[in-house]
Amino acid sequence: MSGPFEPFTADDHRARMERAAREAAAAGLAGLLIAPGPDMVWLSGYAPPADTERLTLLALVPGRDPVLVVPALEAPDAAKAAGAPALTLRDWTDGEDPYAVAALGLDGDGRFGVSDNTWALHLLGLGRALPGSSYVALSEGLPMLRAVKDAVELERMAAAGAAADAAFAGIRTVRFAGRREEEVAADLAALLRRFGHERVDFTVVGSGPHGADPHHEAGPRVIEEGDMVVLDFGGLMHGYGSDISRTVHVGEPTDEERRVHDVVREAQEAGFRAVRPGAACQDVDRAARAVITEAGYGDRFIHRTGHGIGVTTHEPPYMVEGERQPLVPGMCFSVEPGIYLPGRFGVRIEDIVTVTEDGGRRLNDAPREIVTVG
Amino acid sequence: MSGPFEPFTADDHRARMERAAREAAAAGLAGLLIAPGPDMVWLSGYAPPADTERLTLLALVPGRDPVLVVPALEAPDAAKAAGAPALTLRDWTDGEDPYAVAALGLDGDGRFGVSDNTWALHLLGLGRALPGSSYVALSEGLPMLRAVKDAVELERMAAAGAAADAAFAGIRTVRFAGRREEEVAADLAALLRRFGHERVDFTVVGSGPHGADPHHEAGPRVIEEGDMVVLDFGGLMHGYGSDISRTVHVGEPTDEERRVHDVVREAQEAGFRAVRPGAACQDVDRAARAVITEAGYGDRFIHRTGHGIGVTTHEPPYMVEGERQPLVPGMCFSVEPGIYLPGRFGVRIEDIVTVTEDGGRRLNDAPREIVTVG
Repeated sequence: MSGPFEPFTADDHRARMERAAREAAAAGLAGLLIAPGPDMVWLSGYAPPADTERLTLLALVPGRDPVLVVPALEAPDAAKAAGAPALTLRDWTDGEDPYAVAALGLDGDGRFGVSDNTWALHLLGLGRALPGSSYVALSEGLPMLRAVKDAVELERMAAAGAAADAAFAGIRTVRFAGRREEEVAADLAALLRRFGHERVDFTVVGSGPHGADPHHEAGPRVIEEGDMVVLDFGGLMHGYGSDISRTVHVGEPTDEERRVHDVVREAQEAGFRAVRPGAACQDVDRAARAVITEAGYGDRFIHRTGHGIGVTTHEPPYMVEGERQPLVPGMCFSVEPGIYLPGRFGVRIEDIVTVTEDGGRRLNDAPREIVTVG
Repeated sequence: MSGPFEPFTADDHRARMERAAREAAAAGLAGLLIAPGPDMVWLSGYAPPADTERLTLLALVPGRDPVLVVPALEAPDAAKAAGAPALTLRDWTDGEDPYAVAALGLDGDGRFGVSDNTWALHLLGLGRALPGSSYVALSEGLPMLRAVKDAVELERMAAAGAAADAAFAGIRTVRFAGRREEEVAADLAALLRRFGHERVDFTVVGSGPHGADPHHEAGPRVIEEGDMVVLDFGGLMHGYGSDISRTVHVGEPTDEERRVHDVVREAQEAGFRAVRPGAACQDVDRAARAVITEAGYGDRFIHRTGHGIGVTTHEPPYMVEGERQPLVPGMCFSVEPGIYLPGRFGVRIEDIVTVTEDGGRRLNDAPREIVTVG
């Protein structure tokens, strides 16, 4: 591999598919059945034009060559996928039973891990073709499959994070007061694209009371002087995700606004400092939450502290109470505590963090102190 | 309802949900479990922002009020859906088991119809919450649920068809020779939007030899004088689909090109004339295919004759050998025979047709004779 943004090679995909099959075996599974979507792209490099009623399925069975089942009309495209040299293509034509084709070589009584987003139509079809089989969703059976990133993936994650930082630097310079949230959101999307994102997944602009609703995206509300504004944006660059939140203020913040912002900033710092190999995911949540609870806002931090990120912007591991999964070097996830004061304002500060050999490394560097905008 | 483009009302959705539950009971099902996507939009008017790992599910059980299970953060949006007054909202919060919430009031040993695109994660979760239950995909258990359109839906289908005709009238006037297929495809997309489409699903421009591949979309090939060009485009307008194909020629066609085009046009006419209540879907395919076979091109008509269309551009019923489903007034589907001469050119002519009380009615009126372009 000659650089961070070279396309992944057949060897990269072969290694991922072999590892996935090994981990499946270790988890007591007869194999993995992978649907179009992020799992298939990550494992095989193949992204069908759409996920439809026509079966496309990657079957990984320990000790056997990977098989990609595709509709005949799509076989030429599949043969061009980066991972194609590392797998066997098996096509089916209208009139054939695609599930019988997919079942060839699979253990009829096996337990298989399936992509979370596999269509029920296909899962039920496979169940007919393999009457003794049973299934577990990958997020339950093998949740950490894509969680640990290798060096090349980490370089892409870092580049996506730097682009998100650049977008934040850009948005600080635009006018907020007197413009609609959705106009600022459009600016954010344009900035993400300008700095290299091929896909924008979300551009939250939560001004004033809207900032107190962590689910708010961006609407027609006109931003006013004196508003706190939660910004939370990200997408994909070179196939890997960014996700950053900063809270800015239109004009000078009040003492209370500064105090709440300081608490969230300390909480985010505490969550970050809890990141190290062997710590549990829930330890990151606890560390951030303790700061907010201590400051008296415990009941106003109404979501988990973080989520994994990689070829999607939202995936395991989750930084949440009860998640005992130990952190492993190469994992990437958000640390994003917040305080939400209903009807008034909200504050959230978020970085993507990766686990290193002896701690954590932030992939976002945009300033975390409160920033005033015009 | 005051007009064809008034939003659907709670009563419209109530009627659809009641009919769906009735049809489920008649098919021996304990109920229908509907995922985000076209089924949910058509039944309830609710379209969640995304289809994710968080369960959103519409449960229709004969004799009971419909229930929409939603994540708590999305409940305010769901409450605004057109069909919300006709159903009970039941929300769940992070930490609760959403499958246990969805299972309330469902027969634990029942057989349920599920949307084809239900995530495996959710189907497996429901199976855990209802250990004696079994499932059938809607396209297999109740394939005709959305197939028969009512008067208001037909007015929308007709409007979408007229807009596609207008887009064809527009594309006849643009330059083809010397431009790339993808440039003409972009023109088609812009025309569909100009004439009212909110979504463009496909814009096939298959020039010269590319026209012989029915799976070809549009690429960098530069269109030349003397090319036949297959155009096949459509999308959604006011929530309902269009889909039309016409084959044009850059400059004067040869005798052979005219002959092949005439055969396809006759086949399309024969398929259309076979449409009437009580005829089987396969009769439409047979009628169109007979003309092409008779002309000696039987082995060059390499796909089925048509597919249903409604809130998606691709759904049951399918006009294909073996499909004995009788045609019913209000069904809408494509009639689109073609002839494909590998390495040379292809011809396809397609209209959307709806079944009337005594035959069929085309929803496209663009000229079917061969059209020359510049």
